[in-house]
Amino acid sequence: MNNTIETILKHRSVRAFTEVEIPQSDVDQIIEAAQAASTSSFLQAYSIIGITDPEKKRTLSILAGNQSYVKENGYFLVFCADLYRHEQAAEQHGVDITQTTESTEAFMISLIDAALAAQNAAVTAESMGLGICYIGGIRNNLKQVCELLQTPNKVVPLFGMAIGYPKQIEEQKPRIPKEIIFHENQYMQDNDILNENLQQYDQIISDYYKQRTNAKKNMTWTKQITNTLEHSKRLYLNDFIKQCGFLR
Amino acid sequence: MNNTIETILKHRSVRAFTEVEIPQSDVDQIIEAAQAASTSSFLQAYSIIGITDPEKKRTLSILAGNQSYVKENGYFLVFCADLYRHEQAAEQHGVDITQTTESTEAFMISLIDAALAAQNAAVTAESMGLGICYIGGIRNNLKQVCELLQTPNKVVPLFGMAIGYPKQIEEQKPRIPKEIIFHENQYMQDNDILNENLQQYDQIISDYYKQRTNAKKNMTWTKQITNTLEHSKRLYLNDFIKQCGFLR
Repeated sequence: MNNTIETILKHRSVRAFTEVEIPQSDVDQIIEAAQAASTSSFLQAYSIIGITDPEKKRTLSILAGNQSYVKENGYFLVFCADLYRHEQAAEQHGVDITQTTESTEAFMISLIDAALAAQNAAVTAESMGLGICYIGGIRNNLKQVCELLQTPNKVVPLFGMAIGYPKQIEEQKPRIPKEIIFHENQYMQDNDILNENLQQYDQIISDYYKQRTNAKKNMTWTKQITNTLEHSKRLYLNDFIKQCGFLR
Repeated sequence: MNNTIETILKHRSVRAFTEVEIPQSDVDQIIEAAQAASTSSFLQAYSIIGITDPEKKRTLSILAGNQSYVKENGYFLVFCADLYRHEQAAEQHGVDITQTTESTEAFMISLIDAALAAQNAAVTAESMGLGICYIGGIRNNLKQVCELLQTPNKVVPLFGMAIGYPKQIEEQKPRIPKEIIFHENQYMQDNDILNENLQQYDQIISDYYKQRTNAKKNMTWTKQITNTLEHSKRLYLNDFIKQCGFLR
């Protein structure tokens, strides 16, 4: 197994960082690596906003649900879907591309482009010995996040990424059995096999939590995700993303 | 610079592969690495379908716009947004989570989860000396792709990935200047700076194409993306994705 695969398999989210800032040259390397990712039709339909202002970090951490590691880290990035510069570019050529940029397809392209770039950034940071944590919590209050970051129409902040020197390393959470996330040639729709695998996985996750918490936490995967998904969150997003000029 | 960063920066899409199949152990490693990526709220809201049946590859390549490298490669993966197993799991606990799974937020989570996993797969493959190419073309005919892969409700194939031993290595396309894709603390909305950078980038891309094609291709980035975005593609997607149980 090569170093790259080792780095990738060693991943776990880090939620406690030292206050040591990441050197600018490392940040530059992370951004360069992000930009090296594949991009749909060469569109590069995303932007990255680096947050260095402590006051903005503090505000973001509150907006993202009071997560301390949003303000206490070595660097903080926000990845955005971005078709703003494309509309500017088309305008230079006298072409209106709004019908395309506001389509579901364009939104999907932007999300995928942004996520591919982000994962390159994550792996790069981890290969340097840094830890990372994705922050979906910025979608709790996207209107305020947009105001804080002064994003124009056709730009939507999607998620943040806290990066820094780990203060505490957590254990890796076991993933879903390959048997039910990987399919060959066609989607495996046999619910007996699915449920059998979910049951096995529930046991693995239950054991994992028990071991980690001295038997205090008793939770399976199916129960955990049912709890998470039982109450809908962020239902304002459909309207808000339309307001930003996407998904119309 | 470590090996991982070198691998990431060396990326270019490969569109011509030898017919040599990738060993199963390498495919397994790629899938394991994909699964190691971060996932929102531990949901793991994606599936990966490996296509080994030559007839299915051939059909997919036609559906994706007659791209030869969809059928001629060492392995082909399809990454899907997937909340099917979550609905099954919640049902076991007697809870209806449809309001959540059909939300825009859930669709975003699934897309991001799938893309993070995919980029881990891409970097892993490239670290093994393999080449990759993302295939957005499967979104040309998603209904037929779903039928071919027999995906249930709450599963949407998002993009493919051709993997294999490169037969031909292409040059790397220069990326957008960091100055306009990276912003510090707030989105840079100065259109004079934007246009100046776009102009510089147009020159870089124009030079790149001229050099690659013996001056036959004369194209700037702003012109290229304007051409791409002038005519809307895949406008059926909004309706189709709703039919699949998302984005309602």
